[in-house]
Amino acid sequence: MRVATNVTQNLQLDPQGRLRHFLSIEGLPQALLTEILDNAERFVGVGDRAVKKVPLLRGKTVINLFFEPSTRTRTTFELAAKRLSADVMNMNIEMSSARKGESLRDTLRNLEAMHTDMFVVRHQDSGASFFIARQVAPEVSVINGGDGRHAHPTQAMLDAFTIRRVKGGFEDLTVAIVGDVAHSRVARSEIHALKTLGVRELRVVGPATLLPAAIESLGVSVHHVLEDGISGCDVIIMLRLQQERMESALLPSAHEYFRIYGVTEKRLRAAKRDAIVMHPGPINRGVEIDSAVADGPRSVILQQVSYGIAVRMAVMAMIMGRQPE
Amino acid sequence: MRVATNVTQNLQLDPQGRLRHFLSIEGLPQALLTEILDNAERFVGVGDRAVKKVPLLRGKTVINLFFEPSTRTRTTFELAAKRLSADVMNMNIEMSSARKGESLRDTLRNLEAMHTDMFVVRHQDSGASFFIARQVAPEVSVINGGDGRHAHPTQAMLDAFTIRRVKGGFEDLTVAIVGDVAHSRVARSEIHALKTLGVRELRVVGPATLLPAAIESLGVSVHHVLEDGISGCDVIIMLRLQQERMESALLPSAHEYFRIYGVTEKRLRAAKRDAIVMHPGPINRGVEIDSAVADGPRSVILQQVSYGIAVRMAVMAMIMGRQPE
Amino acid sequence: MRVATNVTQNLQLDPQGRLRHFLSIEGLPQALLTEILDNAERFVGVGDRAVKKVPLLRGKTVINLFFEPSTRTRTTFELAAKRLSADVMNMNIEMSSARKGESLRDTLRNLEAMHTDMFVVRHQDSGASFFIARQVAPEVSVINGGDGRHAHPTQAMLDAFTIRRVKGGFEDLTVAIVGDVAHSRVARSEIHALKTLGVRELRVVGPATLLPAAIESLGVSVHHVLEDGISGCDVIIMLRLQQERMESALLPSAHEYFRIYGVTEKRLRAAKRDAIVMHPGPINRGVEIDSAVADGPRSVILQQVSYGIAVRMAVMAMIMGRQPE
Repeated sequence: MRVATNVTQNLQLDPQGRLRHFLSIEGLPQALLTEILDNAERFVGVGDRAVKKVPLLRGKTVINLFFEPSTRTRTTFELAAKRLSADVMNMNIEMSSARKGESLRDTLRNLEAMHTDMFVVRHQDSGASFFIARQVAPEVSVINGGDGRHAHPTQAMLDAFTIRRVKGGFEDLTVAIVGDVAHSRVARSEIHALKTLGVRELRVVGPATLLPAAIESLGVSVHHVLEDGISGCDVIIMLRLQQERMESALLPSAHEYFRIYGVTEKRLRAAKRDAIVMHPGPINRGVEIDSAVADGPRSVILQQVSYGIAVRMAVMAMIMGRQPE
Repeated sequence: MRVATNVTQNLQLDPQGRLRHFLSIEGLPQALLTEILDNAERFVGVGDRAVKKVPLLRGKTVINLFFEPSTRTRTTFELAAKRLSADVMNMNIEMSSARKGESLRDTLRNLEAMHTDMFVVRHQDSGASFFIARQVAPEVSVINGGDGRHAHPTQAMLDAFTIRRVKGGFEDLTVAIVGDVAHSRVARSEIHALKTLGVRELRVVGPATLLPAAIESLGVSVHHVLEDGISGCDVIIMLRLQQERMESALLPSAHEYFRIYGVTEKRLRAAKRDAIVMHPGPINRGVEIDSAVADGPRSVILQQVSYGIAVRMAVMAMIMGRQPE
Repeated sequence: MRVATNVTQNLQLDPQGRLRHFLSIEGLPQALLTEILDNAERFVGVGDRAVKKVPLLRGKTVINLFFEPSTRTRTTFELAAKRLSADVMNMNIEMSSARKGESLRDTLRNLEAMHTDMFVVRHQDSGASFFIARQVAPEVSVINGGDGRHAHPTQAMLDAFTIRRVKGGFEDLTVAIVGDVAHSRVARSEIHALKTLGVRELRVVGPATLLPAAIESLGVSVHHVLEDGISGCDVIIMLRLQQERMESALLPSAHEYFRIYGVTEKRLRAAKRDAIVMHPGPINRGVEIDSAVADGPRSVILQQVSYGIAVRMAVMAMIMGRQPE
């Protein structure tokens, strides 16, 4: 599917510029991203309360529409929706490749007719969430829970939230994204988010086979040597190396990858002393990251998970026109 | 399983004539069907509210007991139960064909012992919901969510509800049911519902191989030519052509079926100018129905889906002795 | 995994001796078991109310973490949690045998980071729930929903609850556990519970191949002839004969097992006249138990299921520091 970027902004925002769908960071103004972060700040406390629940989405129907299985991601959205008091239903849909578009359209129309308020969509095809957002009725919203290699905007926003919480802002930061940028929807969304939010310098680091061509056009610098790439960095964002990449011709082996790009305590000396290490999970210990780093004092990987619920609650509430207390 | 029709009425109704189970339209009096439609009318508005939820079944336990997988049907009942504030649990049960009855009885007794209030049963065997309703304890109710070729009473009632909403009543209507009547639990339930509700003329239309023998005994007329069958009709109810039928000797091919029985705009000229087209879904575009018809102004297919939630809420509430506001 | 018994007590109890996890009966004091039974007594009534729901765990997050599929057990915990008004999520996790420990630890940390309050764990490996309880953060609790051959403590407590309800106490009772004790987590937990609660005499009955070596050290007597074992008993607890045992060399055949160890009305004459028969379910009719017994007046099998919800509610509420009304 082709994603028409110029349509992106209009599709995600209503005429008043408020969030209507959340499909991609690309095209969203800085003020809106900041508003998401500010709202998420107010939801962080909900997770610490005795009663971890607010009634903002009571009587709303949220459907997790998963065309690609992902227990982990489904759980975060299900939990966020339940803590907002929504009624949540999980649907795992396997579509035959033939007639796919047609059946999907009918499935959506059916679920809409049941007065669904929001779809969280996970799909193996890039652009699927845009396709779905274009199909749905005006009163229905779509959140992209990851589509192909295209985008994973809630992951990018929880990363941004974690960075802002720990570092206090974006303007003075040098950030490196390390790993398989070419195949990563997470990296793509992170680049758009961090550029929009104004980090001083953004770098991508990895072997040439795992970096997309012409990535510099997005305003990032390219590094092939890990120590160079993270040199002087405030934030190092690791990407997960997918199993299929390890088995492909793009890489010699997982062991070899770790030898060259695996982040270890020793290598981290090239970064700033107070640099933090992030990872969208699940981590491959001993492949892209050493256990000592993953479990060490620089790691904010579990904070990312915690903040992920707050960020998803914020996005869901904003889309439904609700403000946290 | 043999379904004893004369037992039907007693089993579904309590001594005061109130709905206790909802298994089959057959044997239910017109007044009760009308009461379901009237109650559903009050639930239609719930889907349009900001808070799509009423507390009528709060603290009640509803178990979706699905012996045959059907995400679509399960979703409609789950949603209806959640909007009534019930606690809902989904159980997909695959039973070995041997010892089936025995295990099923024990499974039911176990779930009853947990103080389940209602089972929604979907089963591949005709009569399964009656079998289960006969097994359950006096305080437990059963709703038939489709059993074999036998019955699908909530589908029939949502069809009747849609017809009454759009056409204002039943007495003056000519209705045609088109397609694979012989293998359809939907058709069987629709015939009973529409005859009981008093449509003026009810027809079945299809090739002889897909119409049951002696169907006229139910008070319907039989047509083998589509244009004849829908001539002068107010309502045309399409049935879904099952994949296995297309592959069997009963039909030459899907393409051939469409050529002879597929409903197109052109063919619809035989019906009344304000005729509506219905379909229980999911539709086979280009097999039993042309896309132009399915998406056209005569189609009320999506209204059927919407009203389906309201009708299921009404049936669930009536069974639990609760009235909508 | 090795289960260090001496650690058990500390791990399950907080410094004030209150229940923090519920992993095994072993090592728990009699007063605590009695407290569970007393609390369960107050929850029994909830199942009979019009609104079967109390708000004790509102806003708490319970995750059913099932590494071994068990619809039946999952349902009982899901229902108990929902009747306590918790938010419940079901996760079925299949782990590759390699790297299992590592991934599991990361999975747990992730779910904890989402502010999960309680895990109900079902696992095929003995000791898995202890392993998990040792990993989790201080504010997170674990309930063992059955791990390998090790323990199934909620089953043991619901058995004890049923016995106390029907027999009024434990001190004067002779209890026989009949069947495959060697492979049964249920039997192991029952032995610990009933010894702690002070039954006068506890016996295990079965063929030598299905009784563990040195079982006498737990304070039970061993019987190989059914009539001897149940002679003069007040309570007979049957165990389920697993399919794989019937197919193994440990037993000649299911039919042969029934001939020697199957509990029939005739054989029950050896027990006291008011003896009760229990079974954790699902029962194998005609293998370990005759249908006439299972459905007869001595059977309290369905009461066990009912009380199981109340007992699980009591354990969950106690762990979360909540008292029933």
